[in-house]
Amino acid sequence: MFEGPVQDLIDELGKLPGIGPKSAQRIAFHLISAEPPDIDRLTAALNRVRDGVPFCSVCGNVSEADRCRICADPRRDASLVCVVEEPKDVAAIERTREFRGRYHVLGGALDPLSGIGPEQLRIRELLTRIGERVDGVEVSEVIIATDPNTEGEATATYLMRVLRDIPGLTVSRIASGLPMGGDLEFADELTLGRALAGRRAMA
Amino acid sequence: MFEGPVQDLIDELGKLPGIGPKSAQRIAFHLISAEPPDIDRLTAALNRVRDGVPFCSVCGNVSEADRCRICADPRRDASLVCVVEEPKDVAAIERTREFRGRYHVLGGALDPLSGIGPEQLRIRELLTRIGERVDGVEVSEVIIATDPNTEGEATATYLMRVLRDIPGLTVSRIASGLPMGGDLEFADELTLGRALAGRRAMA
Repeated sequence: MFEGPVQDLIDELGKLPGIGPKSAQRIAFHLISAEPPDIDRLTAALNRVRDGVPFCSVCGNVSEADRCRICADPRRDASLVCVVEEPKDVAAIERTREFRGRYHVLGGALDPLSGIGPEQLRIRELLTRIGERVDGVEVSEVIIATDPNTEGEATATYLMRVLRDIPGLTVSRIASGLPMGGDLEFADELTLGRALAGRRAMA
Repeated sequence: MFEGPVQDLIDELGKLPGIGPKSAQRIAFHLISAEPPDIDRLTAALNRVRDGVPFCSVCGNVSEADRCRICADPRRDASLVCVVEEPKDVAAIERTREFRGRYHVLGGALDPLSGIGPEQLRIRELLTRIGERVDGVEVSEVIIATDPNTEGEATATYLMRVLRDIPGLTVSRIASGLPMGGDLEFADELTLGRALAGRRAMA
């Protein structure tokens, strides 16, 4: 539709997730009239990510140093490890301000059709962490917080099998059920089934 | 929430129009696992736009050459000039495939509070084009297609005053009214008022 550099930029922006043709056009025209230093800051940030993002050597979360802020924080309970698929899941759980333990980022979920088996995930590192203790503290509980979808459930089942025979270790799974503010009438069968199966005695 | 380069990228992406914190995070994590050449194509496109986008010397649309594709196309009716605010408006009208004339891009709309007066818009260039003829063809009609909002209406009124005394020139304004597929009941008063005032005899 446009010519030259503008269309090139619209095309490239349109390849990003969640950016449709209209958003790409809107962003491109915003950038045309942006100050060069603003664009430079964006390209600099892109180049740093392109050159490789450092990951925490302990938990696999994105990190600036060898250990991420959470793994380096002695106030975080090292006996409680929450296993998630991706760094963005760490961010989601941190936003709840409910969890004071540590994390372990798998780097994905089991998906044999895409060639992602247990070796492609950081499962061996999880076992090493449990075996060697975390900061000298014995891991007493692993909370499996993979997504409640096909791949995440398969990963949770696999992890359960691997971890269940470790003495003194509790393995738990985050609850599935109706979202808060949700409506029973409009819940899908699977979610409602889970909500029923996961019912808890009221205090 | 994140550390180092990832958070920098999320921050920069979040400054783009229409990109909220969640989208910025999603795009950043997409880019972390993207291939370096994909990121290079995006930064290259950004750098070209940063270094300045060429505009058509005739109509002011974005262009690769001195004249844009539309101004260089002899099949486009040079006697009919559609005046728009921005290059993206040219794209919007081109998508209708209804218009076979030429364009004139003002580069904005009158907005005295933001310091945009007639001198900041390409109005002088429009008068020169009309005076000198376009490709040897006399301009017979100028269609004012500025946005139907405060600034666009003010710009249309101003242009009408400037252009109305040019002999042999028709000045028209695109119609305002109910959008197709719209609902009378939910139309705002201004739009419905315009739709009534702009009523046309049925054939």
